[in-house]
Amino acid sequence: MNKAIVLLSGGLDSATSLYDAQAKGYEVHALVFDYGQRHKKEIKCAVALAKKARCPYEIVKISLPWKGSALLDKKIKVPQKRRLDAKDIPVTYVPARNIIFLSFAASYAEAIGAQVIFIGANAIDYSGYPDCRPDFFAAYAKVLEKGLKTGVQGKKIRVETPLIRLTKAQIIRRGIKLGVPYELTWSCYTGEKKPCGQCDSCRLRQKGFDEATKGRAP
Amino acid sequence: MNKAIVLLSGGLDSATSLYDAQAKGYEVHALVFDYGQRHKKEIKCAVALAKKARCPYEIVKISLPWKGSALLDKKIKVPQKRRLDAKDIPVTYVPARNIIFLSFAASYAEAIGAQVIFIGANAIDYSGYPDCRPDFFAAYAKVLEKGLKTGVQGKKIRVETPLIRLTKAQIIRRGIKLGVPYELTWSCYTGEKKPCGQCDSCRLRQKGFDEATKGRAP
Repeated sequence: MNKAIVLLSGGLDSATSLYDAQAKGYEVHALVFDYGQRHKKEIKCAVALAKKARCPYEIVKISLPWKGSALLDKKIKVPQKRRLDAKDIPVTYVPARNIIFLSFAASYAEAIGAQVIFIGANAIDYSGYPDCRPDFFAAYAKVLEKGLKTGVQGKKIRVETPLIRLTKAQIIRRGIKLGVPYELTWSCYTGEKKPCGQCDSCRLRQKGFDEATKGRAP
Repeated sequence: MNKAIVLLSGGLDSATSLYDAQAKGYEVHALVFDYGQRHKKEIKCAVALAKKARCPYEIVKISLPWKGSALLDKKIKVPQKRRLDAKDIPVTYVPARNIIFLSFAASYAEAIGAQVIFIGANAIDYSGYPDCRPDFFAAYAKVLEKGLKTGVQGKKIRVETPLIRLTKAQIIRRGIKLGVPYELTWSCYTGEKKPCGQCDSCRLRQKGFDEATKGRAP
């Protein structure tokens, strides 16, 4: 059985990509980051998802002491009711987050002999982060080819982005078919008891469920 | 004063690149990794070097639980007296190490507004690691251009490799001119009280000092 690393944040996109990887026949190893995010709720959700999907997982703890993001620094407010079609990059952007996450995934993949890294990035219904777009992933593929032992030996480790060109509603429809337990996922940036309903992430989630199921997001 | 991030391992190459960056007029911020390496000696050396050069530094602690390298796993022996012109990649290779280190440097650089990342990689007198070669760094530059907010905004963060095409002797000659305190650096992979003198890193160091100064490596 071929192995795959899945970057698992606890959100709905990464949960869907986990089930997508399993449906494609991979033995999935999930990779979860404790990176100083505003709340630990999403880490708990990621672990619950990995357990539910019966896949082994690693939690990697990293520190980004320079912060530079509303998700790392509670002094910066998470924007509420921001226009979802705004063209700027919001303050929730974390400098180099996916560059960092993929670098650990590459290390993990090479160490256990996995050929693929799944990341649930999405460039349609998203917050405008540059490290979620197809040309970023194309550039990253080249780094893995040139910088890894396996790359030099001609055995490429691929980055697969199964959701990159789907709308949130399309992601959810696919996830429902795959049996993704969306009730275990968490999207809200703020991490209070209940989702705030106002941050980008809450609103993209609700918009997706509105369109996909005409129902309230779990 | 323009800012630069310098990846500082405590070895002679990174120490030289720190002094090179300062000589070029940058306000240097050093970045040190505690990544589960065999010994903490090199971290102490890195801190001593940063203090000596009067530059601020951050120590980032990361875990690579999957190991996959003699530098992370004491069950794997560090090769002794390996041919320095061997074409294979030795077991001291750490999967994705520079991919990971540069990803944190990129995050740090963007958060504090630095325009350059210095890395003391060397593709002449080295252990054959793929992530020390020019085409790897060229690929990485593209990732920073595509994946960072600053890249998208047209303000590129560059990766500078001042030692990439120098022999170890040339590096040391340059470092002596720059006033690098080589007695504070540590190269040996094993981290005993004294350098083992037999690992790749010890032998490349001694070879460099032999050629540059006809003297014993400090």
